[in-house]
Amino acid sequence: MKKLFTPLSNGSVTSPQGYYASGVISGIKKDKAKDIALILSEVPAEVAATFTTNQVKAAPVRVSMQHAKNGRVLGILANAGNANACTGLLGLKNAMQMTETVARELNAKAKEFLVCSTGRIGINLPMTKVISGIKKAVKALKADGGLDAAQAIMTSDSKHKSYAIEFEIDGKKVRVGGIAKGAGMIHPNMATMLAFITTDAVIDKKSLQRVTEDAVEMTFNRISIDGDTSTNDTVIVLANGKAGNNPIRSQHPSRELFRTALTHVMKTLSRMIVEDGEGISKVVEVCVKGAASAREAKAAAQSIATSALVKCSWCGGDPNWGRIMDAIGYSNAKVKEELVEIYFDGLLAVSNGRATKIPVKRLKTVMAKRNFTITVQLHLGAGEYTILTTDFTEKYVEFNKGE
Amino acid sequence: MKKLFTPLSNGSVTSPQGYYASGVISGIKKDKAKDIALILSEVPAEVAATFTTNQVKAAPVRVSMQHAKNGRVLGILANAGNANACTGLLGLKNAMQMTETVARELNAKAKEFLVCSTGRIGINLPMTKVISGIKKAVKALKADGGLDAAQAIMTSDSKHKSYAIEFEIDGKKVRVGGIAKGAGMIHPNMATMLAFITTDAVIDKKSLQRVTEDAVEMTFNRISIDGDTSTNDTVIVLANGKAGNNPIRSQHPSRELFRTALTHVMKTLSRMIVEDGEGISKVVEVCVKGAASAREAKAAAQSIATSALVKCSWCGGDPNWGRIMDAIGYSNAKVKEELVEIYFDGLLAVSNGRATKIPVKRLKTVMAKRNFTITVQLHLGAGEYTILTTDFTEKYVEFNKGE
Repeated sequence: MKKLFTPLSNGSVTSPQGYYASGVISGIKKDKAKDIALILSEVPAEVAATFTTNQVKAAPVRVSMQHAKNGRVLGILANAGNANACTGLLGLKNAMQMTETVARELNAKAKEFLVCSTGRIGINLPMTKVISGIKKAVKALKADGGLDAAQAIMTSDSKHKSYAIEFEIDGKKVRVGGIAKGAGMIHPNMATMLAFITTDAVIDKKSLQRVTEDAVEMTFNRISIDGDTSTNDTVIVLANGKAGNNPIRSQHPSRELFRTALTHVMKTLSRMIVEDGEGISKVVEVCVKGAASAREAKAAAQSIATSALVKCSWCGGDPNWGRIMDAIGYSNAKVKEELVEIYFDGLLAVSNGRATKIPVKRLKTVMAKRNFTITVQLHLGAGEYTILTTDFTEKYVEFNKGE
Repeated sequence: MKKLFTPLSNGSVTSPQGYYASGVISGIKKDKAKDIALILSEVPAEVAATFTTNQVKAAPVRVSMQHAKNGRVLGILANAGNANACTGLLGLKNAMQMTETVARELNAKAKEFLVCSTGRIGINLPMTKVISGIKKAVKALKADGGLDAAQAIMTSDSKHKSYAIEFEIDGKKVRVGGIAKGAGMIHPNMATMLAFITTDAVIDKKSLQRVTEDAVEMTFNRISIDGDTSTNDTVIVLANGKAGNNPIRSQHPSRELFRTALTHVMKTLSRMIVEDGEGISKVVEVCVKGAASAREAKAAAQSIATSALVKCSWCGGDPNWGRIMDAIGYSNAKVKEELVEIYFDGLLAVSNGRATKIPVKRLKTVMAKRNFTITVQLHLGAGEYTILTTDFTEKYVEFNKGE
């Protein structure tokens, strides 16, 4: 089968036509690393977004929710090093001032910019630094600035996360590119996770929002590092129409293609986030099959993926499947112990709820790898859910102990 | 106020009148430590019990649920080093054989004994060792054998847990004593936790079950170490009536006194379990007040107590209250950010959802202690819930990594 999508080398948010980006040092981060990112479309773009489900929403989340609602936007402004969360009315004012500043510099309106912050909660933004940083970011905008922007949104990430692909819609070349940051507080319903996606596809707002929600549900919402859902999570997709394809609309076959492309980019970015989780040593795909419903499959998979004991056993390479049985047993999924099968990659470790004859040594060989899959078959129905998660390590604790 | 209850020195399950106990080495544990415990009442005792809510219930749990249902019982048999969970029909047969063996040795009926197991999941019991261990345990029964029994139910516990009190009902001396084991898989709805309580009080089965459930709800169900609810958790209360008090019945004022006494013993044992959690360095009381309902207070408290990030910050002594705001925000409790107050012991760190002027140094002084309290006031109603929990440490991970 011909590959649908061609990955682009050094692909990022500036890979699609008509986008500029930058990443600069404003001084918010103590270590003088890039901490302000700006993405700009040369023409107003349709925008779709999903935000954290946490009731405690950071100020920039509340501002961006407003700005994403109506009309087209020009770009996204983000800072790292400070979450601007739990900062009250002053925080809200500061988030608004960020959009006003970038708008003034670019002769646009504040509502044409979305704003994001990531970093520690509960500290007011150093606005003098932020404002001069924004001015610097506007001056630094470049047609190949996507990687700079990817670096500027990093917090505890060890590397920047960036990806783009090209494909065709009705003979027109279309590109989708994205950058993301992750590392801690990563759990379905959005993580301390920012992901900015750009495309030059022509697509209406309603379709864009719909495919964005579908793609987020299949990707960013199915990763978990530590089970904590952050106050700042945001995924934003901009579509500026520069590719000149026939408009992607509901009922149009190209919508399915675009959805697949967007999902592919988000899936790649979300895996990069998990692979770069704070202090982790294993990336584990947890797949629950045969649940009574999809919702129950999700409950069982999440219970496994957030069990401290299960995650510790992964860290040590110990095929302690009893902890997996325990975790599904206390989940909200219906479980009949005597029907359960558990696979480590392809190896059947548990059948009818009991240990098989497989030598523990062979299971340990699977768990010695950095990446493996745990599949749980409940034999109660057709519900299925997969989540990408990590182990729990001493390094994670060490990393998250102090300031 | 005069103290209601007098703690007894070396108090345990053999402190109340008419109980014998033992703890012996059968060889189930690799390190030749005591691993079979037996508690016997010299006359049939009323029994009340609560069991794990995990759907995957160990074989002994299923047997004990049956035996606790009807009639009086003579005692409790327990082994450590093997959970006899996920062991199928053979596991059930083995658990039944344990009760049959002890009954035969004591000229009683199998259904007069409850049976418990704790240890690794998924391995068949070495029945030859178990059976000779049971015979040995019967021979070793002593009127002061409670501490031996407490030692024999330990798994990863660093010390045995034992406590007893004396008080008066209508001028008659009544005693309540207990032993427990904990360490890992500790989370409300019962933990890898066994607790056996004896009393010489005269009380009918219905009243005993009712006060037991009330007391468990206020004590063992309000502790959490790692958020994992085990397959084997069991609390059993025996009441043999040897104290000769006027029967404690519903509507009788002594029932409230007995409930308070039982709660006091269970609370003491449950705190011992948390204090001895695997690899922990802090014991933290999380108290949520002012929630819209008691159920929501519980949801918020549990969300804090199970957040990996919050627990890591406790380990490091970092007063990172932003993670607490985050955890309540994604809980199922209604939260209005602008109303939230957070206290570290008595110190107000957050008011109206924002940092107060309190110096971080003072908050760090609180967190430097081994024991402190986090109080969250939501200002939305009268719902209240307290949970006793621990930090997450590198040692916890190290401890739970391997075999």
